[in-house]
Amino acid sequence: MSTAPVPGPQPSGSLFLSEIREQPAALGRLLEHADEYGAVADVARRRGLTTVRMVGHGSSDNAASYGVYAFGLLPGWTALRDSISLSVYYGAEIDLRGSCVLALSQSGRTPDVVQYVERARSRGALTIAITNEPDSELGRAAEAVLPLAAGPEHAVAATKTYTTQLAALALLAGHAAGAGPVVRDGIAAVAELLDDLLPVLERRVSELAVALAFVGRMFVIGRGPEFATAREISLKLLETCRVAAEPLTATDLVHGPVAALDGLFPVWTIAADDESLPSVREAAARARAAGATLVASGSAAGAIEGAAYTVPVPKPPVSLLGPLLSVAPGQLLAWALASAKGLDPDRPIGLTKVTLAL
Amino acid sequence: MSTAPVPGPQPSGSLFLSEIREQPAALGRLLEHADEYGAVADVARRRGLTTVRMVGHGSSDNAASYGVYAFGLLPGWTALRDSISLSVYYGAEIDLRGSCVLALSQSGRTPDVVQYVERARSRGALTIAITNEPDSELGRAAEAVLPLAAGPEHAVAATKTYTTQLAALALLAGHAAGAGPVVRDGIAAVAELLDDLLPVLERRVSELAVALAFVGRMFVIGRGPEFATAREISLKLLETCRVAAEPLTATDLVHGPVAALDGLFPVWTIAADDESLPSVREAAARARAAGATLVASGSAAGAIEGAAYTVPVPKPPVSLLGPLLSVAPGQLLAWALASAKGLDPDRPIGLTKVTLAL
Repeated sequence: MSTAPVPGPQPSGSLFLSEIREQPAALGRLLEHADEYGAVADVARRRGLTTVRMVGHGSSDNAASYGVYAFGLLPGWTALRDSISLSVYYGAEIDLRGSCVLALSQSGRTPDVVQYVERARSRGALTIAITNEPDSELGRAAEAVLPLAAGPEHAVAATKTYTTQLAALALLAGHAAGAGPVVRDGIAAVAELLDDLLPVLERRVSELAVALAFVGRMFVIGRGPEFATAREISLKLLETCRVAAEPLTATDLVHGPVAALDGLFPVWTIAADDESLPSVREAAARARAAGATLVASGSAAGAIEGAAYTVPVPKPPVSLLGPLLSVAPGQLLAWALASAKGLDPDRPIGLTKVTLAL
Repeated sequence: MSTAPVPGPQPSGSLFLSEIREQPAALGRLLEHADEYGAVADVARRRGLTTVRMVGHGSSDNAASYGVYAFGLLPGWTALRDSISLSVYYGAEIDLRGSCVLALSQSGRTPDVVQYVERARSRGALTIAITNEPDSELGRAAEAVLPLAAGPEHAVAATKTYTTQLAALALLAGHAAGAGPVVRDGIAAVAELLDDLLPVLERRVSELAVALAFVGRMFVIGRGPEFATAREISLKLLETCRVAAEPLTATDLVHGPVAALDGLFPVWTIAADDESLPSVREAAARARAAGATLVASGSAAGAIEGAAYTVPVPKPPVSLLGPLLSVAPGQLLAWALASAKGLDPDRPIGLTKVTLAL
């Protein structure tokens, strides 16, 4: 069994891998729509909507974790991952006139996201669909539609949808803060960095996959904007490799779960070269002291002492865009580890691309 | 080794068990302060503060998950688990004049919660400390202080602090909605139900602990207000029993992690007799179809088909108060399972009662 890229007509995992590789191009396509993002941000600004309610499932909800920081740090708006069940199932009557809703759905067909948007629109929110399929039920339900332009995504586990969602949220937040061009140029620079990084990582993760082939559980820690990365890497490992990976903030880890660690339980640490680094380093040190094997990635991977494996990524010119790069080691490890375990990352057991029920 | 309650001077797990048993009395003590909760809710109402920012770590953050529903369903306010790192570490400049901050800390000494409150107060938020130690740094930092009155908590893993936090949030939300007396009476009724329930559960969980003694990983699913319960039960199992338990909403489960399930991987399902039940039933059925052993608890435990173990709790007169009862099976299982595994639930490895760093 080889963990190197396999050419040919759709062997196991080839869709997943080709979509990972396509991410720099997908980011380029998103940027062609930068002006549309600017126009929608202007509407929100003019209406004075400084509460951003994000809804989505799976990877889309992970991207929303990033949105909390993008909107909090750029325009200083309050962004939250809203509860879909609170309004759709329990019928909460919340005044939404000061709110802007961002509905994140690759397919634009997720039923309860569509229902949430219909309800929020009727209650006075500005509703914005961010989707790969503008001509969808979600696109029709929302007042404004912004394309992800990631191109068709065939692998069940999302990759290029996730990174374009991060870029879309950063772009919207940047425009809301009057810094649209800076963020747009930053995303273009990230796309170039990612294009150089991916082949390097593809070689690097093969070694890591062999080392992690027997791992059944893992904690993935990150903080601040990189908590989204911890969530997304955990989800990729869960859905494609059947690893019980749980995302935690660095702080969460020391407030309880550190007690469950031992030497057979790796901790993947995402370390960004930013204000969160001291607390992430300290949490990693606590995990190491408990005997856990450390995998370190992110722009400050080298700062994690005692890491058995280090997978650094470059620091982008706009620090907030780091998560567009730091998710790549996790995506590629999920592909390599699934291959090493004889699983097909294109078709995880029990999953479909669009979840229509629940 | 016995899993029955052990009398005598502080044997392993006795603090944890006695604090679990003390919860009905602790709820009674909280209710003596109901008027103070009413007065603070009036201040928030008069100032027109309809955004509630909750901060806390560990169990306190789990209680905040409940607060999202308590405030969303009772006064129709937007309540969110705010990011501490966003303001304390990254210095986000968010306008907080329309916000009310609820700082949840058993000890009142959690450093970054105190820092968050100081910052939020200087930026115009109404800051309220909800703590077991009103005469603490947090109590002094906040504009208003509400006592939990849970009494000294000595076991590292929180129990009576968590349930009194849930009651405190419900009480505040109830007063904000002009329904303070209904919620107050509901909590009094729950305290009585819990007093009857605990001895029954203590006997019931011994059997379950033996069955789960070899489990290293678990998913715990809940939806709506019971997602807080899923988080809290997971945390108890992680910190006292070293089980890698991951909380998921019913929807999260089918959007990815269901792919990681197999017959050696139990799924604990918290089923409430409310609007979320159909989706929780469907998620449990998907888990069962993947071969997972199901443990069902909650007021609608009996509605989960194919459950190997069922641990029902009564439905309280005020439906929203269900989580005050439904956490009890998880608390008691954590105690019984730790005992069965020879671990001391009073003193989990690597944890201290108050986390002062990070």
